[in-house]
Order: sequence, then structure tokens, then C-alpha cells
Amino acid sequence: MKHATLLTDFGTQDGYVAAMKGVIATIAPSAFVHDASHDIAQGDVLAAAFALRRYWRRFPAGTVHVVVVDPDVGSERAALALEAEGRFFVGPDNGVFTFVPAQRCVQLPIPNDVAPTFHGRDVFAVAAGKLLRGDALESLGSDAPVRVALELPEAEGNNGEVILQDRFGNLITNLTRPADVWIAGREVKLQRTYADVAEGELLALINSDGLLEIAVRNGSAAQKLGVSRGAPVRLRL
Amino acid sequence: MKHATLLTDFGTQDGYVAAMKGVIATIAPSAFVHDASHDIAQGDVLAAAFALRRYWRRFPAGTVHVVVVDPDVGSERAALALEAEGRFFVGPDNGVFTFVPAQRCVQLPIPNDVAPTFHGRDVFAVAAGKLLRGDALESLGSDAPVRVALELPEAEGNNGEVILQDRFGNLITNLTRPADVWIAGREVKLQRTYADVAEGELLALINSDGLLEIAVRNGSAAQKLGVSRGAPVRLRL
Amino acid sequence: MKHATLLTDFGTQDGYVAAMKGVIATIAPSAFVHDASHDIAQGDVLAAAFALRRYWRRFPAGTVHVVVVDPDVGSERAALALEAEGRFFVGPDNGVFTFVPAQRCVQLPIPNDVAPTFHGRDVFAVAAGKLLRGDALESLGSDAPVRVALELPEAEGNNGEVILQDRFGNLITNLTRPADVWIAGREVKLQRTYADVAEGELLALINSDGLLEIAVRNGSAAQKLGVSRGAPVRLRL
Repeated sequence: MKHATLLTDFGTQDGYVAAMKGVIATIAPSAFVHDASHDIAQGDVLAAAFALRRYWRRFPAGTVHVVVVDPDVGSERAALALEAEGRFFVGPDNGVFTFVPAQRCVQLPIPNDVAPTFHGRDVFAVAAGKLLRGDALESLGSDAPVRVALELPEAEGNNGEVILQDRFGNLITNLTRPADVWIAGREVKLQRTYADVAEGELLALINSDGLLEIAVRNGSAAQKLGVSRGAPVRLRL
Repeated sequence: MKHATLLTDFGTQDGYVAAMKGVIATIAPSAFVHDASHDIAQGDVLAAAFALRRYWRRFPAGTVHVVVVDPDVGSERAALALEAEGRFFVGPDNGVFTFVPAQRCVQLPIPNDVAPTFHGRDVFAVAAGKLLRGDALESLGSDAPVRVALELPEAEGNNGEVILQDRFGNLITNLTRPADVWIAGREVKLQRTYADVAEGELLALINSDGLLEIAVRNGSAAQKLGVSRGAPVRLRL
Repeated sequence: MKHATLLTDFGTQDGYVAAMKGVIATIAPSAFVHDASHDIAQGDVLAAAFALRRYWRRFPAGTVHVVVVDPDVGSERAALALEAEGRFFVGPDNGVFTFVPAQRCVQLPIPNDVAPTFHGRDVFAVAAGKLLRGDALESLGSDAPVRVALELPEAEGNNGEVILQDRFGNLITNLTRPADVWIAGREVKLQRTYADVAEGELLALINSDGLLEIAVRNGSAAQKLGVSRGAPVRLRL
């Protein structure tokens, strides 16, 4: 049984995602195609890279992960298919694969007759279908490196920053050490889980990805603290 | 063919739901995994219980229904796997299974090394995968009762109340008798279906779950009447 | 392997869509059921028709496309099952199939005991399940024509109009000739793809459906120009 996942910023209402599913179903009719998300903020490559990081290794070897957050579709940016730890990936070379250690990679040719605004359907879904039906990665294009990786701010000692905000308003940092923190002029105590504080209270915790996160129980830390990506965070050791 | 459904309040944009799908696909690669919803309002256990009520019996015997609306994740609340009328269920013991008459139930152990903030991935998806591949319910944990059920207001004679509001703004009551009603100081006439009144007009009807509902054709009764959960409704007999 | 797609305006949060999936899984347990979208604006038959147009031919022959955008559910409007180019369709006779050239069509009977507000579950999902398990179209009802097609404004020479706005705020017109355009008192230059202009700039292009579209790179043309469906557009030749 072959599996694929789809991650886009298309929303679903216009039928673009369904067109991609149809292309895959035609080429690889017995594959399971899972929606990862179609609600990535428009063109937010960083959010796509982090979402993908959360799930790609959870799927079995052979899975094809399709990522179409591609604000420069139709430009000179390369279209890629790659392999890492037995999983396959297709998508644009714009940083969405920052957290995927590619072992093999090919550049997908862009035929002249494809829609320059919809490589998701005409290039990436086609490549995904071919990988799902068993075509070799090398048959899809010529060897090429992944060129673009996002440059993420690194923590320096006890000083880090917020690198991402999730849908709940949790603030995810580039720190990994369990400790109380200072953020937005406030001290926030380390806990194990959200339920360790009262509703509406702030807490810090090591999240399910191993990163230090500032949260509010049943609320939004981003809203309560008035901060977002880039806000400084300091460990209080 | 085995089927599973997923009901969460995670949204999809952060990749948490996809991580759960990956865990299930790894353990039970030939199962069909259906999204029920990931748009339950954050921590709204009542809404999750009612959504589940609408669909669980519609799936074939053997289906595994996963429900992760779990504001107290990582606390002392139990993690459950249960069986009712040939369907299986996994989720927290917080009331989400209020409308499921459990015939067998086990408490899932929480291993020490799982993320205390993401039992959806590390406990519930794992249990769902095992049930889908054919493991016996009893092999997943030790016998335990479902402890938590939501206490819903009961109608007294002709007097009931709004117990739920759906996405369209329809007001669902705890009354089941077809009749005209009084709500928010207005009389509303019983009809068969939405199209029986003009656009923007109020109506009452017996909905597809057998409950008396107050609606507005192509509009929101909640907005038009300015009421929500808990508003009194009286049958006009 | 049989495939189905679901297109509704139900959202997912209330469990109505999941109930439809359960009905299909019970009748045709080995079919792949794909979400096309559940985010069509409430009762927006035109948007549903255009979304369906974007994907129905992309799926393989034998696919069953279910469309339940049905503001007049329970009224006299007919319930249909039809076939076009080897694909099957079920849904209301209200214009959602405007872009589907039906070759065979039957009217589905509405049993007395079905919920008049939820034909999606009790009529259309049942018909879809039967088609997926191999029942003949003719076995589902008696021959009947598709009666309702949307009347779309046609372009006259160089003068067309906006017929649809997608989720990104792109303005899709009924013009098909690649050219610069006038819209809302502004001249907009033809380009190949979004990335051909700077962020926030207007452009025109031939979109992936072959229609002339006015867009803003990484922004909303609808918002920037303050126009929506019906706005006049003129080719500048």
C-alpha cells in the first residue's frame, strides 16, 4: 500500500486541490492520498517547512510527500523530486524542504504545455503519481541539488527567539533546554503540560517536537503577550 | 477493508493531524483514514460529542473512531479505548463519548517517554493503528469504565432549551416533538424543510437527528434571534 | 479501485460530512473517498459548479463525484444521478452540473422516510455508494433530463466581466484571449505568471483553466480594485 500526503496553501474551495488528487488517482489509482493541510498561510514557506517537519518521518517508507507552497510558481525556481530516509518528496526548491536531509534529488522538467500558474497539478501531482506507481526517482529528471534552505535564527546560549506561532497562538522557540524563561518582560515558569496551570495562565514547556514553547492554557500566548515571530526569549537558569 | 475517522480541534495547518495519520499509516498501512473534522472549537467537548453522535453508527462495524478534543491532555484524565455496537473508539475520558453506549472499555497506559502535550499522536493514534491491524481491545490496556459523561439539560414537558448551535447558526434544542415554538419572544412555525419559507425567514423543524431545530432559510437563526446555547425554547401546543 | 469525491457547503465541524462518508463506507467499503471541498460558501451553486469543473475530468473513469450544495433540499427540485465521459455524478438539479455534459441521467426517488433536510446523507451518499459498488445508473431511478443550468454572462467581443473570485482574491473573467485589459478604470498588463511582477502589483494572465484572470502577486485583486463578480472587463487590443 502506497501513501501520499498533500500540503498546500490553496484552501479547498476552488477545486485546485481536488484537481491534484484527480491527477494522482489517474496515474496511481490504488494509492492512499492524505490531506496534510491546505490552510498554510498564503506563500508561508517557513510554516510549510515546519508542518512537514512534524509529520514526514511518521509515515512509512515509500510515502510520497507533496508540498505546494510555491509563491514563485512559473518563475526560474526549480521543481524538485527527492528522497530522504526512504520517503519521497516533490515540490519547489524554495525552502520547504529545509528540514528534509535529501539523499538523492532530481530537477523535474517543466513541459512547455503546462499551466505556468499551476505546477501543483501539472508537474508535482504528475511526479507524485509516477513515484507512487513505482517509477524510479531518476526517471523523473536529472540529478540536481536542493539549493534553497531557510536560514533560521540560532539560539546563542540562553538567548533565543520565537521562530513560529501555531494556530492556537503557542509561541515556539529555537531553544531546547527545559527551563523557566523571560519573554516580553515577563517570567514564565516551566511546566510539563498545559493542564498544569489554571485556564488563561502562561506556561513554558518542551513541546512534542522537542522545542521550548510558551503557551496559555486554553488561550493564545501570542495574543496575551502581544508578540510573534522574532520576539526574544531568554532562559532563566 | 478497515476504516478510521479522526475528530480533533487541531486545525490542520500545523501538521499535528498529519503526524497522527502517519502513525496510523505505519501501523495499519491498508486502513482508510477519513477526516471527520479538525475544526471543532478549541476544547469544545460538547461539540465533539454531538459531531461524533451524528456519524459513528453510519460507518461499518470494525471502524475505529478517534476523538482528540482533549484540553486536559497530560493530566490525570484517563485515555480510553472502547467498543460499542461493533465500532471502536479511542480518546480521552472527558465526555466526548457521552453518546456512545460503551460495551467494553480499557484504559490506555501512558508510557513515560510520550510527549505529555500530544497524546493524539503518541497514545491515541497508536491505539487506533493497533485496533485497525486487528489487535484485540483487551490487549491495549486494562478494564476500566468510562467515567465522564456530559450532563445535558433535559426538556421538561413543553419547556426545553438550545443545546447546540451548528455552523450555519441553526439552533438545536433538546425537544423532539414536532410543534410551533416560542423562542426569544417570538413565535416560530413548524415546517418540513428550510425551503418551506422565504429566504431570511425563521422556521422550526425536526432535523436529521430527530431534534427540534430553529433555523433561518439561507441565514443564521443564532444571529437573527441573538441567542445561543442555553436559550429557553417552549413548545406551543 | 473506485474513487469518489465530495463537494459540499457543510463545513466539517458538525459531523454532517462524516455521516455521508459513513454511509458510503458501509455500502462500498473499498472505495477511496476524497474530500474535494466542504468550504463552498453557503448555497453558492455557481462556485460549486466552477470548482467541480476544475477537477471532474482529472479523475479516472468510474469516479463518482458527489455535489451537495443544495439550498432547496427537501423542496420539489429533483435529485439526480448522471454520467458524463465515464464519470458519475450525484447531486441536486439546481445548476451544480452546468459544466458537465450529461450523457445519461436518472432522477433519484426520495423515500418517504428520509430526512427532508439531509438528502446528502439519505439520498446522495446512498446513490454514490451504489454506483461505487457497481450498480447500474439505470437501477437508481427513472430517466430524466438535467433541467437546470446556470446562465452565465457571455463575453461580447472585447467586453467581458468577472464571473468568479477565488479564495486568493483572483478575479476570473469570461474572456479567453491573452491581452492587456481595462478593469475598474485601470490598465492591467498581460503576463505569464504571478512571479512576473513585483509583490503587490496587478497582472492579467491566462489561468490554468484557460480563462483570463486579473490577479495581484501575493495579494488580492478583488481587494485592491474593490470589485467582485459582475465587474466589467475590457480587452485592450
